[in-house]
Parts: sequence; C-alpha cells; structure tokens
Amino acid sequence: MEGKDARRIRLGMVGGGTGAFIGAVHRLVARMDGHYELLAGALSADPARARSSAAALGIAPERTYDDFREMARREAARADGIDVVAIVTPNHLHHPIAMAFLDAGIHVICDKPLTTTVGEAVELVQKVRSSGLLFALTHNYTGFPLVRQAREMVAAGELGEIRVIQVEYPQDWLATPLEHTGHKQADWRTDPARSGAGGCVGDLGTHAFNLAAFMSGLELRELAAEATTFIPGRRLDDHVQVMLRYEGGARGLLWASQVATGSENGLRVRLFGTRAGLDFEQENPNQMRFTPLGEPPRLLRRAGPGLGSAAAAATRIPPGHPEGYLEGFAQIYTDFAQQLRSRWQQRTSPPHSLLVPTVEDGARGVKFISAVLESSQKGGAWVDARLPVP
Amino acid sequence: MEGKDARRIRLGMVGGGTGAFIGAVHRLVARMDGHYELLAGALSADPARARSSAAALGIAPERTYDDFREMARREAARADGIDVVAIVTPNHLHHPIAMAFLDAGIHVICDKPLTTTVGEAVELVQKVRSSGLLFALTHNYTGFPLVRQAREMVAAGELGEIRVIQVEYPQDWLATPLEHTGHKQADWRTDPARSGAGGCVGDLGTHAFNLAAFMSGLELRELAAEATTFIPGRRLDDHVQVMLRYEGGARGLLWASQVATGSENGLRVRLFGTRAGLDFEQENPNQMRFTPLGEPPRLLRRAGPGLGSAAAAATRIPPGHPEGYLEGFAQIYTDFAQQLRSRWQQRTSPPHSLLVPTVEDGARGVKFISAVLESSQKGGAWVDARLPVP
Amino acid sequence: MEGKDARRIRLGMVGGGTGAFIGAVHRLVARMDGHYELLAGALSADPARARSSAAALGIAPERTYDDFREMARREAARADGIDVVAIVTPNHLHHPIAMAFLDAGIHVICDKPLTTTVGEAVELVQKVRSSGLLFALTHNYTGFPLVRQAREMVAAGELGEIRVIQVEYPQDWLATPLEHTGHKQADWRTDPARSGAGGCVGDLGTHAFNLAAFMSGLELRELAAEATTFIPGRRLDDHVQVMLRYEGGARGLLWASQVATGSENGLRVRLFGTRAGLDFEQENPNQMRFTPLGEPPRLLRRAGPGLGSAAAAATRIPPGHPEGYLEGFAQIYTDFAQQLRSRWQQRTSPPHSLLVPTVEDGARGVKFISAVLESSQKGGAWVDARLPVP
Amino acid sequence: MEGKDARRIRLGMVGGGTGAFIGAVHRLVARMDGHYELLAGALSADPARARSSAAALGIAPERTYDDFREMARREAARADGIDVVAIVTPNHLHHPIAMAFLDAGIHVICDKPLTTTVGEAVELVQKVRSSGLLFALTHNYTGFPLVRQAREMVAAGELGEIRVIQVEYPQDWLATPLEHTGHKQADWRTDPARSGAGGCVGDLGTHAFNLAAFMSGLELRELAAEATTFIPGRRLDDHVQVMLRYEGGARGLLWASQVATGSENGLRVRLFGTRAGLDFEQENPNQMRFTPLGEPPRLLRRAGPGLGSAAAAATRIPPGHPEGYLEGFAQIYTDFAQQLRSRWQQRTSPPHSLLVPTVEDGARGVKFISAVLESSQKGGAWVDARLPVP
Repeated sequence: MEGKDARRIRLGMVGGGTGAFIGAVHRLVARMDGHYELLAGALSADPARARSSAAALGIAPERTYDDFREMARREAARADGIDVVAIVTPNHLHHPIAMAFLDAGIHVICDKPLTTTVGEAVELVQKVRSSGLLFALTHNYTGFPLVRQAREMVAAGELGEIRVIQVEYPQDWLATPLEHTGHKQADWRTDPARSGAGGCVGDLGTHAFNLAAFMSGLELRELAAEATTFIPGRRLDDHVQVMLRYEGGARGLLWASQVATGSENGLRVRLFGTRAGLDFEQENPNQMRFTPLGEPPRLLRRAGPGLGSAAAAATRIPPGHPEGYLEGFAQIYTDFAQQLRSRWQQRTSPPHSLLVPTVEDGARGVKFISAVLESSQKGGAWVDARLPVP
Repeated sequence: MEGKDARRIRLGMVGGGTGAFIGAVHRLVARMDGHYELLAGALSADPARARSSAAALGIAPERTYDDFREMARREAARADGIDVVAIVTPNHLHHPIAMAFLDAGIHVICDKPLTTTVGEAVELVQKVRSSGLLFALTHNYTGFPLVRQAREMVAAGELGEIRVIQVEYPQDWLATPLEHTGHKQADWRTDPARSGAGGCVGDLGTHAFNLAAFMSGLELRELAAEATTFIPGRRLDDHVQVMLRYEGGARGLLWASQVATGSENGLRVRLFGTRAGLDFEQENPNQMRFTPLGEPPRLLRRAGPGLGSAAAAATRIPPGHPEGYLEGFAQIYTDFAQQLRSRWQQRTSPPHSLLVPTVEDGARGVKFISAVLESSQKGGAWVDARLPVP
Repeated sequence: MEGKDARRIRLGMVGGGTGAFIGAVHRLVARMDGHYELLAGALSADPARARSSAAALGIAPERTYDDFREMARREAARADGIDVVAIVTPNHLHHPIAMAFLDAGIHVICDKPLTTTVGEAVELVQKVRSSGLLFALTHNYTGFPLVRQAREMVAAGELGEIRVIQVEYPQDWLATPLEHTGHKQADWRTDPARSGAGGCVGDLGTHAFNLAAFMSGLELRELAAEATTFIPGRRLDDHVQVMLRYEGGARGLLWASQVATGSENGLRVRLFGTRAGLDFEQENPNQMRFTPLGEPPRLLRRAGPGLGSAAAAATRIPPGHPEGYLEGFAQIYTDFAQQLRSRWQQRTSPPHSLLVPTVEDGARGVKFISAVLESSQKGGAWVDARLPVP
Repeated sequence: MEGKDARRIRLGMVGGGTGAFIGAVHRLVARMDGHYELLAGALSADPARARSSAAALGIAPERTYDDFREMARREAARADGIDVVAIVTPNHLHHPIAMAFLDAGIHVICDKPLTTTVGEAVELVQKVRSSGLLFALTHNYTGFPLVRQAREMVAAGELGEIRVIQVEYPQDWLATPLEHTGHKQADWRTDPARSGAGGCVGDLGTHAFNLAAFMSGLELRELAAEATTFIPGRRLDDHVQVMLRYEGGARGLLWASQVATGSENGLRVRLFGTRAGLDFEQENPNQMRFTPLGEPPRLLRRAGPGLGSAAAAATRIPPGHPEGYLEGFAQIYTDFAQQLRSRWQQRTSPPHSLLVPTVEDGARGVKFISAVLESSQKGGAWVDARLPVP
C-alpha cells in the first residue's frame, strides 16, 4: 500500500478551501497510502480564502491560484506541474473545470455527480475518450473490499441470474429547513443553480444507483419514479422513490431520502439471484451477508475466509480490525503531535493530549501480565496488581 | 485535522522493515492527518533489509541506520534531527531502544506491551519522568471517539458508581500450531525470548486491561488468574482468564484467547454502574450501547447526537459514514495512482484499476437523475434510463 | 391472560385437517391463553380426512361435519352450539363459509386474505355490518406488543406527521418451481382458482399493506405497481413492487417477494415522521428502533421501559425473555408428556425424551451453588464441583 | 404437536396462586401443545387464596387443597387422580413437596433450583431412582430448538474437542434494593430461608451452569469463585463470577448478575472447540452463530437449512417466524375472546378489542391486491386504492 516505489504523484485541487468537508476528505485519503503530494490549488472562488487555505496546507504561493483556468494553463506549462487534479467544487462547476484540465492534458479525479445535465455529461465522456487521459469519479463506496467481493462473486456466477435488486439510501439531515439557517452545505445542496435539477436524487440517488450497478454488473433499462419535496419552500426534491427494470429482466426498487428521520447514511444494496443473495450495508462495511439458496446464511467478513483477490487488493488490515481501526490508531499519533506542538509553543497541554496512553499506562500493563502469570502459577490465588511506582 | 499550521514533525522509526505488519500501520496512521514526515530509520536488525526497506520508503541513505544506538546519537546531533522515534520492534527490544532515544533527548512513541519485565517498566517510567520528554504507548483502541466518550461519561458520573466490569478479547489465529509453519509473527509471538513471559496475556490481555482502565478510570487492585496453553508444545499461554477486584469495590472478569475459534478481534468492554451501563465492541466502533437504569437503551453513534467534546475531538467524518469510509475512499485514489503509474510505465492497466469509477459511470449517474425527474414529472411513467452514448 | 373467569368460548373450525399448517397454528394459539375449547369441525373437504382429523383432536363424532353449511346450520340449532367459527381454508372458500356462519348467527375468525375478489369483500363487509356479529381477520402480526406500541405512539403524535412509509416482505420459498414437486401448499398458493388473482401480492402483500396501515393509521389513496412472475410456467405473480401515495401526502414503497433468495419471513415496516422514526422487523419482534430527530436512537424493548398500555395488554412475560421463551418452556412439558406416554405404552423412551432435564441435573445445579459459595468463602480457592452421587 | 392421540395427561399444581409469575407460565406452556389438563391444585399456603385461585382456573372444589400432603394422598387414591404434579413454589419447598408426591407414586415436574441444600438434592436423586417415577426439572432454556441443535452438533464432533466455555447471565432487576419496596418476588428471592444460601447464583447461576453443561455435554470438575453483594443490607449475593475447569481440560468463565444495569435476561453460552465455535444468545433464540475454523461464519436459523433432528423435534413453525409469532397470533384470539365476553356482558368493548383486524381491514387488503394487479396491467399507472365502501 505504501507508494514510494516511484516518485509520488503530483496532485492539484480545485475547491476544498478551509471548512469544506469533502475537500478535506479527499486530501486525507490521498495521503493515506502515500501515493500523492498536494502541490497546487485553486481552493476557493474567493481569492483571499483560496490563499489562506493554500497556505495552511503548505502549498507554495506561486502554485496558489485564484482561477482554475489559469491553474490548468500554468501547471501544464511547468516541468514539475501536477499530474492529476482533484475537483471538489459544487456540482455545476465539475464540467467546466474538468474540461479545462483535460484540455491542458492533466488527468482528473472528480467528485460526483459528474455534471448537472446529461448534455454536459455526454460531452465530458467524449472529451475523456478523445484525450486519452485518465478520469476517475469518486463513487467512494465502490472502494470497500466487500463491495468488490460482491462484484467478483456476481461476475463469477455465484448468485446465478439476478432477479431482484433493492437499493436504499436514507439520511435525515434535511428533515428540517436547514438551508434557511445559514448552513452552507444545505444551502448549495438545495440550490438548483449549483446542484443541478436533482436534489436528493443527485446527492444520494446517484450513489445508490452507481453502487447497485457496480455490484450487480447490470445495466438499467427503464425506470418509473416519483420525486417529492417535503419541506415547504425547498427548491429541490428531498425524497425520491423509483421502480427499476434492468436489462435481462431483473426488477427492483430504489429510494433515497434526506428526510428519513433517524437515518444517518444508510446506503444498502441487496441482490437476489437464482442461486444466492447478497446484502451489503454501508454502515457496517466489514460484513456482507451471503445466502445461498437452501444453505445457512454465511457472513463474509472483510479480510476473512472465503474472499477473493479483488477484496484482498483493497484490504489494509487483518480481520476483526474494523476499518476505523486506522482512524483510532491515527488519533494517538495526532494527539501526540498536538501535545508536542503545545510543548514547542510552551503552552500547557490541551486537555485531550491527556488521552494519549502514557509510560505509566504501559508499566501498569506489564505489571498486569506479571500478576496474571504469578496468580496462575499460584493456582489462581489473588495477587496484588498495583504498580510499584507512586 | 490537517496539521500544517506549523512545520511537520520529524519522525524516525526503529523496526517495521518491509513486510512487518505493525510498522506499516504506524506509518499509514502517521500520514493520515498530515502531522509527520518520516525522515530516518533503523528498520531491521538485518542491515540489507534495513536499507532496502528505507529506500522503498524514500528515507535518505544518510539517515538509514543499521543500529538504533547509532541512530539515536546521530539524529540527536543533527540540526534537522528527528523530533520523535516510533518503536515497532518485538517486545523485548522496546526497553533498550526507548532508553537510548530518551537518553538522546528524543520523544518516543512505543508499541505495546511496554517491556517484558516489571523491572524494566519501572525503570522506563522513572527515565521518562526524569527526562521531561513525551512518551506515548500505542494502545490504539483508546483513540476511538466512542471510547473517549465512554471515559468522559464515566468521569461525569453518568454511570454512577461502577460495580461490574466485563472485558473480553477473543481471537482465533493461534488455534492451530501456526508457529511451526514458518509464520513469522506467530513465531516471535510465541517465543518467550522476544515476547516476554506472557503470550496471549501480553499480546491481547494488556490491550483489554488498558481499555477497561481507560474507559472506567478505575485502578486494578487484585486479580486471580489462570493462564492456559492449549496447543501442545507452545511455549507461552494462548488463553487467559482472570477475576478482577478494582479499587473501590468493583468486580470483574477479563478473558483473552488466541484459540477462540471463529473470533476475529473481539475486544469488548462492558461497564455496569449504579445509574447506567455502557457496552463497547471494538469490531463495531461506530456505536456504543448506553443503558440508563429504567429507561430504553440508547445507541450512541459516532458523530451522532448526544456526544461530548472528547469524542468530537477524535472525529473526522459525519455520522453514518463508518470509519472505513476513509479507507474505501482512499482506495479510489490508490487505484487511480496505480493506474497512472501503469500508464507511465507503458504497462497495461492492472485488473483492479478497472474498478475505479469512470466518466461513463458518471454520465450514467447524470442520466439517472434526469430520468428520475422526467418520470416523476410524467406522473411516474416508465422512461428510458440508458445513456445516449455507445 | 388465563381466561376462565367465565365459561370457555366454544370454537368450531372449517379447514385445518391433519397436516395443514395454518389450522394447527390457529388451534395452538387458541389454546394458549385458555379462552377457547374446540368442539366442532368440518376440517376437510375429504370426508374421511375430516373425520380422522376431528377424532385425533378429540372432537365428538356428532359434531364432526363433512360440509360447512350443515355445520353452520346444526351448530346454530344446538343449545351448546359453537360461539365462533375459525375459517382456515384456501382463500377462495373464505367468502361462502363466512357468509354461511354469519347467516347462522355465529361469530367469525377468518384467515387472510379476506376473499379473492373485491366484490365478495364488499359483500362480506355489508353482511357483517348488518348482522351485528363479530368478525376478526387474523392479520396476526398486529398482535405483537411492539406493533401495538407503534400504533399508540403514532396516534399520540410522537412521530409528528408521517412523511415516508417503507414496507417490505421478502421470502424465498418459491424461488424454485416448488409447485411442480407435489408440494401441497405451493400448489394451491400458485393456483388462481384457489388463491385468487394475486399470488405473492395476496399471500405476503396484504400482510405488509395491513401492517403498515395498522402502525401508521394512514389510509392508502393511490398506488402504482408492477407484479412479476419470475418462475417460468407459474400462474401467479411471485414478486411485486409498489409505489404508494397515502392520504395526507405520505409517500412510500412496498415490495414483497417469494423469490428473494436467502430471505425467510422478512416483514418490516419503517415509518419516518417529522419528529421521529420507527423501525419494526417481524423477525426480531422484541425490539423496535425509535429515532427522535436529533437524539440518540432508542431501543424500545418488549416489556421494557417506556412502553404504553397497548403493548402491556399484549405482553405475557418479562423483558429479555424473547417470546420464544414460552415455546422453549412448553417443549419441556411436551417432551415430558411423550416420555410419560411412552411409559404407559411400555415403549422405551423416544430419544428426545432424554433431553428433559433430570433430577440429577437439578442436583448438579445445587452442588454448583454450594461450590460457588464455598469457593467464595475460601477467598476464591478452587473447589470440587462434582456431584457426590455416582 | 397436538397431543390428543391418547387421553390428555392429568396435571396437578403446587404453588402458583393468582399473581404468581412462574405458575402462570407453567400453566400456559402446559396448554400450548394440548397434552395436559389441569385438574387439581394446592395453589397457595394461604387457604383462601388457594381456593380463589383454583376457582378462577376452573379446578373443581373437591380437588382444591389447602395442603400439599393431603393433595398427594387423596389424588393418589382417586381412580382419575393426577398423573403428574408441577411444583412452582419458592425453592425451599421443592424438596418436601417432591418427596410427598414421589412417595404417593405421582410423577413430578419441578421448577429450579432443585433444592436449597446438596443433602436434599442427593436424597431426591436417590428417591427418584428408587421410585422408578419420572422427574423433570424445568430448565426451560434447554427446550430451544437451537440449543438442542448445539448439543447434537457437539455430540457429533462438529466442534472438535471443546477448549473454552464462556457463559454469562446478566440481569438488572435487583440493581436497587427492590426487596425493601414490598416487591413480593424480590422479597423471597433475597431471603435465605426461602431461596437457600445462593441468591444470584441460585436464581441465574444454575440456569447458566445447566445450559453450558447441556450444550457442551461436559462435566464440571472444579471451580474458583467470588460471590458479591452490592446492595447494602441485601442478605444474599447479587453478583457472582466463577472460573471453571471441566473434565478433559476445557477452561471457562461464568458470571451472573442481578445488578448489571441495562441487562434484561442476557443468558449466553459460547463454546470454542478445536474445529469450530458456537454462540447462542437466549434473547435471540432463532439464530445461532456457527464458526468453523477457516470458513465464513454461518448463521444457523431455527427451522432453517442445515439443522438436525433434535432441533426439528422441538420446532413448531417455519423459518423466519420468530417464536413470538405464536404469541402475536394468540393475541388476536385472546382479544377476540375479550371482545366476545364484553358483548355477552353487554359491556362496551374494551379499547384494545379495537385492535383486532376487522372485516373492513380484510376488504382493504383485497382491494389492495386488486389495485396492484390493475396498476401492473396498466404498465404501472397510478390507480385508486381506496375501498368502495363508506
């Protein structure tokens, strides 16, 4: 997973200034496996914010841009220019930005949905094809090991012919008129000018649609749908329900909602084939239920027995370590970093630095081992477990 | 979370050469939030492996060391020497390495257990205290947001007085004599010379003990235990069961096993107080069950309602995005990197690169949005959902 | 719950001869709380089977009938005639049988669906109204305590206004052409003459529809649907997907399937209101998820804290005793009965009788208590736990 | 299931007067499969309560007794005397009552724990053996189909040799000094004179111990334990923790608690063998996790694929119908009975009678089927779903 076997890939970013959620996520995940270094950016349409954001990220002033077109042109002209641009702006800007960088010969990683109109999407498809450049859309849920396992199993015929596909994606963050409270993301997500004509269907529906297609390998043929806006005054749909007909005869339902009270991020795909079924829930991505007809259900576990090479290629850690294991682990390093920086600045430690396990904690652990073995050797007698240090 | 508000912290590493599991994890998590850069290493006791590992990680040859003592001395002497060393060797080396770097004035991050004897542990405690340096032990499970939430709730009295603590940590990876098959980690984990006197109790028991102490804030007073070796010929315990008596009167059980068939990494802590109970399972770290006496159980969800500042400080992403969300997302970036490198090397793309969502996938999604809205506007009529691109 | 505060209710049954699943269930549940005694029956259209079935159930020969019309007439004429008839035949007979007994002045309990045509259904509604008799349809899922809790909460406004209703009912028992293998129930369930025009929609869809209506208290206004038959040659639908529009503006989806591979009996209703959501899964009926907007999800547990009077009225046993507790307990009594009857018939005990806990098991338990207390008094010393009886 | 193939077994009961929990449960489960009729009883030590309780249950006055010894003598003398007595008194009376009925030649079903001393237990073992009579102890949890499946799998060697047994049984009903509030059951459960020397260990510990023994087939050899009383002034233990050594070398822990805040009835047994593990939780008795080493975990489902004859013999209903299905179903019958009795008494219907599904509900369901098929035939057009009856 560690990518230093060649030079690191030079990355630029458009959008994602300080405070933007998805930009920070793109940067974090780009760092995770060590393949990229962030060297250039047009991080905000507001020049002052673009510059302060870039400075905070260590981007050199001469590679900090106010305008994405200028960035595309100048980076293309540098010998050490970026290899790839990551586009993390509101939806309506994906198309012009992607076109500009593709024109400049720079590969593209783009957030979803691709564009706000079908015409722009088709134009972009043709541009990518004619340019010969790489283009990735961050439908991130396809990166889960068990999602790839699902796709591999379907392709290998382990489900037989797929008859039924059930997809759902409930959230509740827009169950109230949040966009009227000054909430920045709610504002642009419900604005047709920036999000496109689809609200919930664009934000959640496309993820759900994409994941079902990725796992099943099936092409959608027809749909019948109803988009609803529950919040008075909202300008885009906040709930959508769809009946699906796939090529080959599979049937299905898809629903996505931003008003499903009590839901967090419940993306779920269920596939039912002639031989077996599969059930994947994004909120519990370390496990997938596999139900061969007439046999007990099996739990396919990330990194566990019975998985194939596609899942293995996307796996970093052993079974039973939920993927959050890495974040938990990173937290120790990060807290330690804060502790150290406080020291450098001769500030007192911030309160959470106290959460880093200390050498005394370690000594207590060693005493624990010693006490357990002593008690065991004494036939289970009670022994003192306290550390002999004040 | 992104740490460039000051210069990055200069990190060195001892142990963790190519192929070592925990060293790679330390490096990944050190990269995640952008606080560190890895600049020096003594990555293996085998000089050739130390050098090839360092080269693969981009460590400069002049900061690649065969010997940790030399590394401590020379890094301490450099103006740009490392700030912190991460120790990721087998257990028996933790003590001498930590002592060497502390003597050289370098802060330490050390894997657990701290040492292999209580005497060494106490010596290290005293050294850290007298040096004034920072020292962190990577009991990584304490970094989970909900674990910190638990600690905060206990401290605030929300559980009342804790009466019962139940801790368990079952695994099954040593349910067969794996150490006789050439398995490198099984070999040193079952070797008293490298692991110390505790097998399962050292590897798993200390994590369990530490997590219970971290969450409950209670000090263990006495224990009665039995350590068992189930695999004939194994030199260390592979199962341990312990009765616990805490200061203040709480009672509890702790068990850890490497032969609990069908278990992955089942670390779980349950606290039962006079007012409420808490249940945290490491394999499902996005949720914690909180059970106030006489009220319906509540599910505390990472980043969800009702959480305090300690959890918030350790949280990167919104509710419902399981922490593996980041790994899944990173996978898209990493696959893209591999695809790009293949391109540079004029190799054909490796098969898994095909898994990166393409511009056509994006266009299909835009068409999906458009078709949903069209059908909805036509009163739910069936409409064509196919992309108008060959 | 025990109903002997007045004389027991005299019950008759039409359908439900030996081997019929649902007839045996009706009899068992009628016995459970002690309110009924089964005194008359026309248990099969086949006279020989009707008589042998009645004899096995202890029904007197003079109250064993070949014909339901004769039964209605003669029971109505007896001073000790039945109070109530239970109708458990295939669907197409529900209407004539119910009409006959209502005409005879006898109350009716009827299996679902009510009839096979809307015209018959309306006729029956009018007959019940004009007769002044009681009529119950056994939509048994409405009897779960937590389902009644849901209805009560909705009625009390705890969910606010309901916006979205999601209902599903997947099974997989007809995923293969089972009706061609001589399977009796599969045969009539897929036969339009006996089941009516709806296959899956009649068998499962009506349960799903009814449960959603019961819980939400909402009236369905419009639907748009697609019924599919996946198994070649099958004469009725085996999968149905429906979009729903309720009075007042709620939207929803309902799907039911007999080919959802790996599903058992997955009836689930989710309600999302402006203030909170509710999630009930029939396969886990002791728990319901209640999610007030902006608060941690709460688990409402059967007989647990926070429940109202409707749930209490339908509750037999304390919290944590899953409802199967009673069946498990009954099994001991039933095994014991078999053991005793074997004894009477001087047969050796059947193998499963050995599963009844014995007096020796009880003595071992007493020894266990004694040993625990002895060890505890000896400060946790190991003590012998074996029974001092050979 | 239905036991009328011979005459019903004549049952008597000692204890279990009006308001007693466990007596009502014994009666309900004795009715469930139709094998027994309750004909005699000494239901309370208080003669007036004994008589009113018997009358409410329809027991004839001449078979209503004030004294269990008289009941044993007189029932033994009747030609139609009881075959079996069920003993449901506080623990300290089990021994004298069982002895009296065995002396009278009457078979015994007895609640647990068997007796309050080991001496009494041994005496009872010997009496049962010498009498040749049947004796069952109602360790009801052994009646679950999946518990029997577990026992059968262990006996067949599917787990290999069992190494580790983990048993737990947490409750929280005595987390406060409930016995000082006039709570009848709390009062005798914490009274050494009526419960014996064990509190939590007698009430819960014996169930846990028995279930582990039943599933594993292993005999306990030694234990080391600590019994604790957390509530000041309580006269018996309310928490117990035990280390176990089984014959053959298996190790284990058992804990039971009446103060585990937030627990309902959490009896759980986990077995870990050389080949596989099993995990059964009483609160979710329709599923058992089976984990063969090196294979994906399998979910054994009650009545589902892969089960053996022992489970089948204890199974009443198809897969996916949780065992509470029967209670839910019975509720409809019981509500209907109440509705009918209200009618007889010319009372207005009690509110919950309204919960019985009506003929209108049935007609709505038929309309639903019809509307679904109509919409499907019209290509998914929206159609009216309302019932054409006012």
